[in-house]
Amino acid sequence: MVVYGSEIAKSIKEEIALKVSGYLDKGLRKPKLKVILVGDNPASLSYVKGKVKACEVSLIDCEVVHLSKDISQDDLEDIILKADQDETVDGILLQLPLPEGLNERSALSKISPQKDVDGLSVDNKGKLFIKEDGFRPCTPLGIMEILKRSGVKIASKNAVVIGRSQLVGLPVAKMLLDENATVTICHSKSEDLKSICQKADILIVAIGKAKFITSDYVKKGAVVIDVGVNRVDGKLCGDVDFEEVKGIASLITPVPKGVGPMTIASLMLNTLKAYEDKL
Amino acid sequence: MVVYGSEIAKSIKEEIALKVSGYLDKGLRKPKLKVILVGDNPASLSYVKGKVKACEVSLIDCEVVHLSKDISQDDLEDIILKADQDETVDGILLQLPLPEGLNERSALSKISPQKDVDGLSVDNKGKLFIKEDGFRPCTPLGIMEILKRSGVKIASKNAVVIGRSQLVGLPVAKMLLDENATVTICHSKSEDLKSICQKADILIVAIGKAKFITSDYVKKGAVVIDVGVNRVDGKLCGDVDFEEVKGIASLITPVPKGVGPMTIASLMLNTLKAYEDKL
Repeated sequence: MVVYGSEIAKSIKEEIALKVSGYLDKGLRKPKLKVILVGDNPASLSYVKGKVKACEVSLIDCEVVHLSKDISQDDLEDIILKADQDETVDGILLQLPLPEGLNERSALSKISPQKDVDGLSVDNKGKLFIKEDGFRPCTPLGIMEILKRSGVKIASKNAVVIGRSQLVGLPVAKMLLDENATVTICHSKSEDLKSICQKADILIVAIGKAKFITSDYVKKGAVVIDVGVNRVDGKLCGDVDFEEVKGIASLITPVPKGVGPMTIASLMLNTLKAYEDKL
Repeated sequence: MVVYGSEIAKSIKEEIALKVSGYLDKGLRKPKLKVILVGDNPASLSYVKGKVKACEVSLIDCEVVHLSKDISQDDLEDIILKADQDETVDGILLQLPLPEGLNERSALSKISPQKDVDGLSVDNKGKLFIKEDGFRPCTPLGIMEILKRSGVKIASKNAVVIGRSQLVGLPVAKMLLDENATVTICHSKSEDLKSICQKADILIVAIGKAKFITSDYVKKGAVVIDVGVNRVDGKLCGDVDFEEVKGIASLITPVPKGVGPMTIASLMLNTLKAYEDKL
């Protein structure tokens, strides 16, 4: 079964819009996301457009602050701090990567945990670690939503995560563990990757290598979540050889229209949460 | 081979004492650890005694503040804050558990990350998560020291951690991953535990069940680290059936005299680090 994250994302945004309508009926304002974009990286411009569009559909106010790549670290941080102090702003997203010469970690640290809707702050990472309420990073959150809404049983299952990045692999491994899966984390230095993957009931692939996971890595009936985003001959594809694997997996997400749209939908969920936490 | 954590701990404390002597020669003060003990829990009293003793040997100043179990949350937190502001105090340890009626999380949050030598703050947990410099929790740090000082190869090895606690399982899993092991985290809801453990090159056992791990869980030549502390018929024993497993493992830590002393030695290491970070 092919599961389209794009479809699930659509439902999520509709659910959010419905909730916001309810708040508006009570005379409350809309939730508000402030997106800070520095420079003119085409991919970033494209991602921000997608976020603006998602906000519209979700009835979330979105304000984009587009700054020159020549902005100083201090000026950038002033703008972030201002947004942080603004009570009408619920979530702040700093579009990464920042142009060269700017310090991401320092800039991100100016966003208070309560507005860190990307879930990137040390505080929110600590909260994930101690299983406390907080903002989970968007891609992992999106992956978990795909699994839950597709009725995938997680508890006691063997989950294998290939990739250990801060953004995806590590957080999603922890979130699967919190749902009581047995979790194995592999990476570029793992040996016998094939035989480890063959035991996975749930396989999360976040390697960054086009079509690396072929059918011999996948157990029959496994759930395969492809987080990869690669461009081959101008065309987007994942880390999983989709055509080969879809006949073996019980569930597989395509690229595009798989995890990607769910990342954005999760940003909408986090922004709504930031707003609701203050009610 | 049986590896005595007690022996390694002795070396570590000697190394620390040597470093401190060097600082004293330069006219600097000793590192200082403030231990806050609330109430009269016999186990806590015993642990604190062990920490005082370890400090003596390591040439670390140790001041124990022994408070009544009837102390209010506010008064307790005032004392912690005072220690936190005291420049002559490098590390603060709040001996857990606190007596009933007192909020641990709130009290712990009063210790700034730079003095959190137990590595329990959300901040230090976040730092572990993002592989940034900070204080690692003492038992996991002790386990890693045992492995490193025993020359155990970790990179690319299959490490299985049984147990997912905040204090031990999760942090040690992350620290093994940071050394490039492939890491599997199991727990009470994992299925086929035996067959998962049989594949482990490094097996970290933190279950809390006396002698649970018998020889059929262990691959020949595996490294077995027993974190369990159980009392059976008045005698201390681990989670591993030591007599059975020692003939199969290439390396095993006993209980007692295994991981326990290394937890305290790691506290000494963290206190020295808190002191040196300020130099």
